[in-house]
Amino acid sequence: MQTGIVGLGRMGGNMAARWRDRGHEVIGYSRTSPDRDVNSLEELVGKLAAPRVVWLMLPAGDPTRQAIRRLAELLSPGDVVVEGGNSRFSDDAEHAGTLAERGIGYVDCGVSGGIWGRENGYAVMCGGADEHVRRVWPLLEALAPEEDGICHAGPVGAGHYTKMVHNGIEYGMMQALAEGYELLEASEYVPDVPKVLASWRHGTVVRSWLLDLLVRALEQDSALSGLSGRVDDSGEGRWTVEEAVRLAVSAPAMTAALFARFASREPDAAQLRALAAMRQQFGGHAVHAVHAVHAVTGVSAGSA
Amino acid sequence: MQTGIVGLGRMGGNMAARWRDRGHEVIGYSRTSPDRDVNSLEELVGKLAAPRVVWLMLPAGDPTRQAIRRLAELLSPGDVVVEGGNSRFSDDAEHAGTLAERGIGYVDCGVSGGIWGRENGYAVMCGGADEHVRRVWPLLEALAPEEDGICHAGPVGAGHYTKMVHNGIEYGMMQALAEGYELLEASEYVPDVPKVLASWRHGTVVRSWLLDLLVRALEQDSALSGLSGRVDDSGEGRWTVEEAVRLAVSAPAMTAALFARFASREPDAAQLRALAAMRQQFGGHAVHAVHAVHAVTGVSAGSA
Amino acid sequence: MQTGIVGLGRMGGNMAARWRDRGHEVIGYSRTSPDRDVNSLEELVGKLAAPRVVWLMLPAGDPTRQAIRRLAELLSPGDVVVEGGNSRFSDDAEHAGTLAERGIGYVDCGVSGGIWGRENGYAVMCGGADEHVRRVWPLLEALAPEEDGICHAGPVGAGHYTKMVHNGIEYGMMQALAEGYELLEASEYVPDVPKVLASWRHGTVVRSWLLDLLVRALEQDSALSGLSGRVDDSGEGRWTVEEAVRLAVSAPAMTAALFARFASREPDAAQLRALAAMRQQFGGHAVHAVHAVHAVTGVSAGSA
Amino acid sequence: MQTGIVGLGRMGGNMAARWRDRGHEVIGYSRTSPDRDVNSLEELVGKLAAPRVVWLMLPAGDPTRQAIRRLAELLSPGDVVVEGGNSRFSDDAEHAGTLAERGIGYVDCGVSGGIWGRENGYAVMCGGADEHVRRVWPLLEALAPEEDGICHAGPVGAGHYTKMVHNGIEYGMMQALAEGYELLEASEYVPDVPKVLASWRHGTVVRSWLLDLLVRALEQDSALSGLSGRVDDSGEGRWTVEEAVRLAVSAPAMTAALFARFASREPDAAQLRALAAMRQQFGGHAVHAVHAVHAVTGVSAGSA
Repeated sequence: MQTGIVGLGRMGGNMAARWRDRGHEVIGYSRTSPDRDVNSLEELVGKLAAPRVVWLMLPAGDPTRQAIRRLAELLSPGDVVVEGGNSRFSDDAEHAGTLAERGIGYVDCGVSGGIWGRENGYAVMCGGADEHVRRVWPLLEALAPEEDGICHAGPVGAGHYTKMVHNGIEYGMMQALAEGYELLEASEYVPDVPKVLASWRHGTVVRSWLLDLLVRALEQDSALSGLSGRVDDSGEGRWTVEEAVRLAVSAPAMTAALFARFASREPDAAQLRALAAMRQQFGGHAVHAVHAVHAVTGVSAGSA
Repeated sequence: MQTGIVGLGRMGGNMAARWRDRGHEVIGYSRTSPDRDVNSLEELVGKLAAPRVVWLMLPAGDPTRQAIRRLAELLSPGDVVVEGGNSRFSDDAEHAGTLAERGIGYVDCGVSGGIWGRENGYAVMCGGADEHVRRVWPLLEALAPEEDGICHAGPVGAGHYTKMVHNGIEYGMMQALAEGYELLEASEYVPDVPKVLASWRHGTVVRSWLLDLLVRALEQDSALSGLSGRVDDSGEGRWTVEEAVRLAVSAPAMTAALFARFASREPDAAQLRALAAMRQQFGGHAVHAVHAVHAVTGVSAGSA
Repeated sequence: MQTGIVGLGRMGGNMAARWRDRGHEVIGYSRTSPDRDVNSLEELVGKLAAPRVVWLMLPAGDPTRQAIRRLAELLSPGDVVVEGGNSRFSDDAEHAGTLAERGIGYVDCGVSGGIWGRENGYAVMCGGADEHVRRVWPLLEALAPEEDGICHAGPVGAGHYTKMVHNGIEYGMMQALAEGYELLEASEYVPDVPKVLASWRHGTVVRSWLLDLLVRALEQDSALSGLSGRVDDSGEGRWTVEEAVRLAVSAPAMTAALFARFASREPDAAQLRALAAMRQQFGGHAVHAVHAVHAVTGVSAGSA
Repeated sequence: MQTGIVGLGRMGGNMAARWRDRGHEVIGYSRTSPDRDVNSLEELVGKLAAPRVVWLMLPAGDPTRQAIRRLAELLSPGDVVVEGGNSRFSDDAEHAGTLAERGIGYVDCGVSGGIWGRENGYAVMCGGADEHVRRVWPLLEALAPEEDGICHAGPVGAGHYTKMVHNGIEYGMMQALAEGYELLEASEYVPDVPKVLASWRHGTVVRSWLLDLLVRALEQDSALSGLSGRVDDSGEGRWTVEEAVRLAVSAPAMTAALFARFASREPDAAQLRALAAMRQQFGGHAVHAVHAVHAVTGVSAGSA
């Protein structure tokens, strides 16, 4: 089938290529990409035959919101917009409402798979009305590795909601693997950690795609010595914790994973200096002055 | 090859069966199993041709310790004992020492795979001297799904150490999946949670054997309504946290998983009653008397 | 000075009494309290001499919002409204804006002290313009145990923000004390836990008002046996975690405290049943059927 | 009364001074301190009149163990040794046993108060037989700020056990305060954080000695800018977590505090590099190379 795509970054570009590989006609627009086929949203809409499908792969927040407002003006009743970027699930109702006023359908679609997706396929989780999801189904089928990997999770918002929870789980799993990796590295028992992890791909309880990726990274850099310890986070991890708070669901593993990333980016965080300050006050504990090497703690003063 | 096995419980019995399926001669002993082939350790040792291999699958701690002491008396120099049970890695040096005094070799072997192992193969992580591991290699090959799944992780203790860390990771991954499951169940966006999880087996970042198992459980009981919320733990999760403490490795996800299980078994834990008591003291907050239904908290008193 | 107060619940009623004890003229209104002096907001405003002060002690959210909208109609330029309830700090700008359109001032004031405040004084943290805070200063002085206990923390919102963080700290401190209490209760070393805690009030690093309260609770019920383990939470704990997420601040102790309360209210939470389900699938672990007594776990299956 | 003291570091020296101030006769020995009164354990024992009291303030582990073995040889039946250092509670039974073989009594005594103790008094928690605790009671009285601050917590081990749990609570409380401090510092609402914390000393729920110390530190350095973020830990925090694991007590706040300190000392910890490695593998996420400045994450790849 024919689709427009707005946003030709790493994800959007690969998805467009995968669609084309599978016989779909894709017209791409991006403000900045040299790979674009048209030079404006207007031109994009003009080149698509009604009823149209326009798939958005833009940064969440204002860029997506503005594109949807403009498309509400340009598209016609019966067209469908798919928000395939990383919108917060709570924005989807607004997006759908903006389009529904003009009779335009809306599907929110969480897409997972990273740079492997073009070749291996993407996981696809979408939300929206049945008729709108049905309209875009051939595009979903072309993205997914197999039809069972497409999930119509519920009404508008359900796609991004489901993707968000997926990413929260991913945070927790990655953190668990990372902690295990550090324990093996720290232990005197295990001389060759990459070998152990590689063996775990076969028959263990922890076999998983994330383990495969960690093994692959260790094949390329056996001590991960080329990387720093600063770890970014994207919105989904934060939103998952916010949802846990809203729904009164205890989510300590996911939250631990998020906080570990926060802490990784603040080696002299205010909270750590506050701890050092209190220790210094009550105990005369040796503390580490700025830039000092790790001082000997010396005689304990009965507290910690 | 020929091996003796001591302990014919769920794990030992399945392993013996898998060995026999693959052409090995297995002589089994258990104090209690009707499947035993001999009636005593003495008889077991007598039936094995030197140099012998005896594989232990007994509960960790005293049962394993006693069996090793007795085998040190019964076996001969050149024989090898494999401790395939769940010994704490720190016990392995003692076990190896007891046997080494008599010239008997020792291999510690962590075996993972649960009830699926008999058919699909077990992950096998072992520790010990090369010559001892080589002696028992055909048995390891028969257990593993493929040769890459066997890991000679290091010296004596490394097998159980590696298995322990594996299980710690498993705790963290399970907790992450469980938190995500509860979020989906609690949300108003997702009407059919099992369907979402089933779709995640294809192309997502969280695809894993544990996800497969959760999907399978939901196929059998779509709301898991037949299960209670009490979750046991086995030793490895605790030992992993102890190791994190010993090695000064931050392990919040693994520890969160362990503590969630602890808390699940104490619905009226002393700490919770202490929280309720403090709230009652400072705020006149409504608290829940024993067996009371969930009271309305009423007017806030400025604290929490 | 003269003030109106709207809301005569536990907090509002005690604060009104404390003001009167200290010579202020208080006119109280509440929809439901028999202690009210007037029968409507209109009557309240009519009885106050301009420039008026009206202090709100209503539940956060809609009740407070509606009262402020009505007061914006009833009051006159130069009057000041104090929001002394538990509004989320992010609502204060809206409240202040509603009133500012009519030339009415706004002070947000976090008040802490629980049922002890009437006698011992309240901690008072407020936000707003200097001129508005100055106007109500005599009321703040009458609430606080001493003038140093009044904090003008910053612009509109700063009072509730500061109170929110205070409550987040309180959550963490309470959780730490509660964990320690349970450890002492669980240990075989400490026959008389209340005695130990009572002694800690003198000279220890953990001496604190919360410790005093726990000691007091134990004086009344030495094993806290009259309380259940269900612990409620109020909004501030949740908002603090949301702020930590927004500001990318790692806050594991506060969050642990919040999640412990969430978990306390769901003894058969979906996440726990999911853990049990995974264990059952991979290991044939004994799990606890609904309402079953704690079963023996039996033979281990190599995983956890 | 008369006592010997072994170990004249910061704690031992201050305690000796406090005893002398209150009229006790103190004979001090230390291998290294210029303040020592005698030059050997032998000389110390020789100068004390039977029945003797010898109070140890040495580093835990081997130094304490060796001193006790030597004192078992030098002292006489009826003498009492007090272990006032930071021994792990589980070592006390061994220490007591070594001395009991010679008819010598043993009291384990946790002492808390830091550098403030000399002037303000120490919290004193001890374990041992009644007769032995009674013998040393005048020394305990001289240490404590008032008699209610002395706690005979239970049998041998109970003093150090209680002190350990005290320190675990202290870790949790400090972490809660530190998190709150960082939130206030990070927020746009609070221009003067030290002022807010100072006000909290009056009437709040979080008023505590640790808050007092943090306020004092901020008086000396209003942004804590002279301190680095590396925070050491002493044994008690680790032991508390180990006990929580042993006793199956969920202790997330205490553990979070310990792990925050661990993480503070490893800015490029292996687990963080593992997280970065996995992100790089699956998403082509921008990651931070060693020593690189904080790169822009750029276009998201659908995962986190």
